Amino acid sequence: GLKKPSRVGGAVTHRRQRAVVRAESINPEIRKSEEKVVDSVIVSELSKPLTAYCRCWRSGTFPLCDGSHVKHNKANGDNVGPLLVKKQ
Amino acid sequence: GLKKPSRVGGAVTHRRQRAVVRAESINPEIRKSEEKVVDSVIVSELSKPLTAYCRCWRSGTFPLCDGSHVKHNKANGDNVGPLLVKKQ
Ligand code: FES
Ligand code: FES
Repeated sequence: GLKKPSRVGGAVTHRRQRAVVRAESINPEIRKSEEKVVDSVIVSELSKPLTAYCRCWRSGTFPLCDGSHVKHNKANGDNVGPLLVKKQ
Repeated sequence: GLKKPSRVGGAVTHRRQRAVVRAESINPEIRKSEEKVVDSVIVSELSKPLTAYCRCWRSGTFPLCDGSHVKHNKANGDNVGPLLVKKQ
C-alpha cells in the first residue's frame, strides 16, 4: 500500500511499501499435485533394523530421510530431524 | 542496502530498500533447545494398529500427529500430512 506522503528536500514523494507475503509452506516441492501428502509404513515389511523418515520435506528420497535436513538446518537456523523407525 | 540516488521532483533521495530476510524455519516452536529434533519409534512397543506421526511441526502432541496439519495447510496453501505407521 502507499504510505503517507513524506517531504524529502522539499519534494513530496510517495514511498511504496512492499507487502511481504510470507507463504509459510513447509513443503515447497514434494508431490504438490496431491492435496495432502500422507505416507504409510507397514512395519512387517521393513527390511532394515532402522529406517529414517523425513520430516523436513527436503529429502530427495522422500518419504525417506537422505540427510538433507542438515543443509536445511544450517541454512535456516532450524533444528528439524527425521523420525527413526526401529524394528526392535 | 541503499539504492542509487534517484531524482524525485528535483530532490535527490536515497531510498532504503528493506532486506527481506526470510527465516524459513520449518519448526518455529518444538523443542528449540535441541540442536536436532529426532524421535524414535520402536515398532514392537506400538500399542495401536495405526499411529500417525507429525511431519508438519505444528502438532500439540508432537511427535504424534494431532490433526494440526489441516489448519496449517489451509492457512498456507500447503499440502503436508503425517506418516502413518501400521503394525500390519
Ligand atoms: S532429509 Fe528430511 S529429515 Fe532428513
Ligand atoms: S499435526 Fe503435523 S502432520 Fe498432523
